Amino acid sequence: MRNIKLVLRYDGSDFKGWQSQPGVRTVQETLQKVLAEFSGQTLRLHASGRTDSGVHAVGQVAHFHSTLKMPADALVRAMNSRLPDDVAVVSAEDVPESFDANRDAVRKAYRYVIHDGATRNPLLRHYCCRHHQRLDAAAMKEAAQVLLGTHDFRSFETEWPNRKSSVRTITHLGLSRFGDYLWLDVEADGFLYNMVRAIAGTLINVGRGYWPTGEVGRIVQAQDRTRAGPTAPAQGLFLMRVSYQEASHEVDG
Amino acid sequence: MRNIKLVLRYDGSDFKGWQSQPGVRTVQETLQKVLAEFSGQTLRLHASGRTDSGVHAVGQVAHFHSTLKMPADALVRAMNSRLPDDVAVVSAEDVPESFDANRDAVRKAYRYVIHDGATRNPLLRHYCCRHHQRLDAAAMKEAAQVLLGTHDFRSFETEWPNRKSSVRTITHLGLSRFGDYLWLDVEADGFLYNMVRAIAGTLINVGRGYWPTGEVGRIVQAQDRTRAGPTAPAQGLFLMRVSYQEASHEVDG
Repeated sequence: MRNIKLVLRYDGSDFKGWQSQPGVRTVQETLQKVLAEFSGQTLRLHASGRTDSGVHAVGQVAHFHSTLKMPADALVRAMNSRLPDDVAVVSAEDVPESFDANRDAVRKAYRYVIHDGATRNPLLRHYCCRHHQRLDAAAMKEAAQVLLGTHDFRSFETEWPNRKSSVRTITHLGLSRFGDYLWLDVEADGFLYNMVRAIAGTLINVGRGYWPTGEVGRIVQAQDRTRAGPTAPAQGLFLMRVSYQEASHEVDG
Repeated sequence: MRNIKLVLRYDGSDFKGWQSQPGVRTVQETLQKVLAEFSGQTLRLHASGRTDSGVHAVGQVAHFHSTLKMPADALVRAMNSRLPDDVAVVSAEDVPESFDANRDAVRKAYRYVIHDGATRNPLLRHYCCRHHQRLDAAAMKEAAQVLLGTHDFRSFETEWPNRKSSVRTITHLGLSRFGDYLWLDVEADGFLYNMVRAIAGTLINVGRGYWPTGEVGRIVQAQDRTRAGPTAPAQGLFLMRVSYQEASHEVDG
């Protein structure tokens, strides 16, 4: 039995998220349907993690087991020629049968994009969250530093109590301004449900002067979701890459 | 009577171009409908030029005459709050009654975006033209130089004979690679119908090795549309800015 790892890119705008659900269009279902069409097999894809409705992926990773004979690079071409234009396979490779895209992920990186220019930009409306006032990026960057490292992040978790732990380690947190756009980059060993969007909503409250920079540390300490900012909209969020022990699956943006 | 100049930005994907036509969604009709809604007047917008179905604008310019009392900046906010999210007013200003967005334009700048990476990018599918092989950007840039200056561009004009002249002056022509993306930037005193897309199609033929760089000069000389390359797809084209004698209406991307 082969185990094949796929790197996937998709525009989340017209998908109801990753996970198959009856009666709606999802990324998983769309990919599995194409795999079934040309393999004649019912194959189940396992992603590094679900993405929500409207969330984009530059480098999602998934694996599936099959008895397909096709070489990995031919598989990429075959899938891309059949997939709709809002999802693509960036690469495919054979991996050990034990490889699991979710369990074996050692780091994930997300980017959250905020637009705070004077006028909304029709060309990027599906790919950023719009804020109507200029945000103080320096204050947001300063406030974010307290999130680096290992903490219990339940203040930034939508579904708590969960069945496991809310402790995660953020290994990188960057905030950069490019003209009217802010990029919040977060890399961690794992993410809680809506964690990046709750961090974004919290930092926006700092950037608009509603909270002092020190508030973020108090929110972490409080371990209480109601203390943090709102969950920022899905369309600003991009799953950038998923890294594994053996190699980092870097993909260019 | 006031004369108001608007700078407009739109995503052309879901519009059948600029110009009002019965039964289809156009940029002109969408804007005029909103102006009518809050002014109670039937106002006619005049653009610097039509854009085709699928073509985007970062800085289109249009003017309209009216007896509206609203200050220009309030007009921007009022229009943006009513417009659908794929079109926005970037700015509005009162101009002399004689100003004409089309007739008075002294330069226009277009950008054509080509993607030649190994895999199509779902996130930018509406904003570039995809080419399946790596293109030779240096050859394209070299070949393009012959287009600079004043020439009869009828070889790059879809509807010839037109009623006027096919002579235009290209004042800037740049070709830059950013990773898997090529940007073809063309600025001229005016453009013929489909001129940038015909230039893009011609340079792609050079970039893929089908034509030598010298072919572009022979095509200009031939004054024959059948000699040039195909009209490249609309979704790669952006009207970047329109400049007037009194001021250049630069808008940030």
